[in-house]
Amino acid sequence: MEEAYITLPKGFRASGVSAGMKCSDPANINVDDPKSSYLDMALIVSDVPANVAGVYTSNLVKGHSLTRTIDIVNSGKQVRGIVINSKVANAGVGQAGVEDAEVVASEIAKRLGCDSKQIMTASTGVIGSRLPLDKMTKAIPELVDSLSAEEESAHNSEFAMMTTDTVPKEVAATITMGDGKEVTIAAQAKGSGMIHPNLATMISVFTTDANISSALIEKALRNAVKYTFNRVSVDGDTSVCDSVIVMANGASGASEITEGSEDYELFEQALTKLSDDLARMLASDGEGASKFIEIEVTGAADEYDAKLIVTAVARSPLVKTAMFGEDANIGRVLTAVGYSGAKFDPNKIDILVGGMLFFHDGVCVDFDEDEAAKMLSQHDIFIQIKLSEGEAYDRMFTCDFTYDYVKINGSYRT
Amino acid sequence: MEEAYITLPKGFRASGVSAGMKCSDPANINVDDPKSSYLDMALIVSDVPANVAGVYTSNLVKGHSLTRTIDIVNSGKQVRGIVINSKVANAGVGQAGVEDAEVVASEIAKRLGCDSKQIMTASTGVIGSRLPLDKMTKAIPELVDSLSAEEESAHNSEFAMMTTDTVPKEVAATITMGDGKEVTIAAQAKGSGMIHPNLATMISVFTTDANISSALIEKALRNAVKYTFNRVSVDGDTSVCDSVIVMANGASGASEITEGSEDYELFEQALTKLSDDLARMLASDGEGASKFIEIEVTGAADEYDAKLIVTAVARSPLVKTAMFGEDANIGRVLTAVGYSGAKFDPNKIDILVGGMLFFHDGVCVDFDEDEAAKMLSQHDIFIQIKLSEGEAYDRMFTCDFTYDYVKINGSYRT
Repeated sequence: MEEAYITLPKGFRASGVSAGMKCSDPANINVDDPKSSYLDMALIVSDVPANVAGVYTSNLVKGHSLTRTIDIVNSGKQVRGIVINSKVANAGVGQAGVEDAEVVASEIAKRLGCDSKQIMTASTGVIGSRLPLDKMTKAIPELVDSLSAEEESAHNSEFAMMTTDTVPKEVAATITMGDGKEVTIAAQAKGSGMIHPNLATMISVFTTDANISSALIEKALRNAVKYTFNRVSVDGDTSVCDSVIVMANGASGASEITEGSEDYELFEQALTKLSDDLARMLASDGEGASKFIEIEVTGAADEYDAKLIVTAVARSPLVKTAMFGEDANIGRVLTAVGYSGAKFDPNKIDILVGGMLFFHDGVCVDFDEDEAAKMLSQHDIFIQIKLSEGEAYDRMFTCDFTYDYVKINGSYRT
Repeated sequence: MEEAYITLPKGFRASGVSAGMKCSDPANINVDDPKSSYLDMALIVSDVPANVAGVYTSNLVKGHSLTRTIDIVNSGKQVRGIVINSKVANAGVGQAGVEDAEVVASEIAKRLGCDSKQIMTASTGVIGSRLPLDKMTKAIPELVDSLSAEEESAHNSEFAMMTTDTVPKEVAATITMGDGKEVTIAAQAKGSGMIHPNLATMISVFTTDANISSALIEKALRNAVKYTFNRVSVDGDTSVCDSVIVMANGASGASEITEGSEDYELFEQALTKLSDDLARMLASDGEGASKFIEIEVTGAADEYDAKLIVTAVARSPLVKTAMFGEDANIGRVLTAVGYSGAKFDPNKIDILVGGMLFFHDGVCVDFDEDEAAKMLSQHDIFIQIKLSEGEAYDRMFTCDFTYDYVKINGSYRT
């Protein structure tokens, strides 16, 4: 993963600049600060028109930059790129928000010599404020002029979309197609609060130089997100701006990936693996998180019940604070499974944490407190719930609930 | 409310003692500490057999003291009283837990000269530990001998059932029946974490000297809890021990309350009012809470959607931390309504907080930051969500999410 950035696939360029949204006076920018503290506009473009697919938040309220992007993707036309801003979500401001996003896209399209409908838009940040169009349009010349396939430019585009993320999240993989050609897939994501699975749960952009139709990208993407992006819960809140976008420009020169082919399988597997990597990074870097928690259920009656169970445990503030406190209060896991709404025999449930058995057939077993304390002091916590109802499996990634979560979210606007 | 305690209705006595569960060495009890820090066994008895009804947690996993009580109430027989212990939930320990609860009830019944099945049991505390029977049976003589109708004994029984509650919760009302006789209803409750509505959401005991059948108590109780106890969410976790129990012994000498009568209406109204008072107290004293939050929706399409909406907002950690931070980030309320699963037109939603309008027709309106800051600095926060889908109403009581919640629940067992 040491050389992972969004412009690794051929024919993509990226940039990230400061439009003064995170840091209002450019003169105040301290270049010793992390770039994520002042870069706030990102642009990722393909040199040639690219096929595209996306999955989006299931929130009935959707941000205006996002609804515009959904319209573009649904049109079935090829795109040139996506502009992403942090700090302002461009949501809850009415028709003006759609027009604002269109202005930003138009300004970029003009300079790239393409149609504005070829530039998708994404915004993340505070809900209920207008995009600062004066600042953004002023920054667009630099944003476009600094587009480059260089690693630094790519990283800048990631920094510019980060909000409360503490680390950048970039992944890449190269696969060899049946014709011997190499295809690269790269992706970057931002989290890290207001995350709960109902389709995509943050903003993530994938680029690939594979030769694949929009319909097939969408198929692969829907399969890839199922147990990855759709299984991340930081706080149970589903944002209005979440989306995963994949752009494929065919620049690898590889043959077209066709449905049912081995190449397609390779592509979907790679997309799934990268989604899994990013999903784990998102949970690990959840707001205020000090621990990564994976919750797995096996033996549930059906998929519906399995999802209810991992969701209930992942959302439980009592489980999440106990993990923060490294307190072996595993009865709280049993409690959450019990109120999940799933049907199961409470006398046939085993619960393991970090491989240690805490409940067997619904009864708390004797455990070594020292061993439990040592296990709970690890960064990665694996909670296993074993039922005897059927064969269904599910899993969820989450993090603990900490003082810092409360601190970050008690004063997010300021 | 200045003279509210559980033995106000005629023919009831109560007591609360220390069995050494909260404070393991009685020699270490500091009588200057709050009584809730060391009293841990409560007994409430009726001098004569009483009719009884209850509502219980919907959690599939139920504590053993509670399942025993449910069996007793379902038997339709009259009861003499209820013994409640804090510190150990008597849940998740298997068949031994049922037998342990029976031992405690038997010891008390022996001293009261009644059948063990006339003594209900309730436990609250850590899940997965056995009841310390030696300590408890040693304390039972004092528990029974100190039974009294005196105010102090009644308060002691409340202190003994408190866990992380910071204040006792006791209410009472007197109503005049059609025959001119006075009937008194009193109740006490404990919270204050692991609370989310799916039937009763804590432990609450009502006593009354009304003359009313078990079936009619149950009818009144089910109506009373609907928008009160069933609308309290502290953390979205539904405990395995929650219950509301009403005992009626007829000692007032009033005529029997019959179905459809004015007396019944008066009784149900009083029961509902006391339930409402206790529900607000429970939310206000939620673990770590610094604020009481009431969420109301009007104009929802139907009752189902209305409940989805108030539940989503009440559970949202982002809304709850914003309220803690007194940050007018009301977009988070809009977001929660959006992902609640309820159907509504996002362009026809108004959101008011403390009477101030923040969103009109789905669009954030200009508001005075100083005025908002002043409003959010109040202890009681009223969030109103107005839709235009239909006539359905619902409401929920909750509290904010604070550093103290994390602190309390990061090390609950210790």
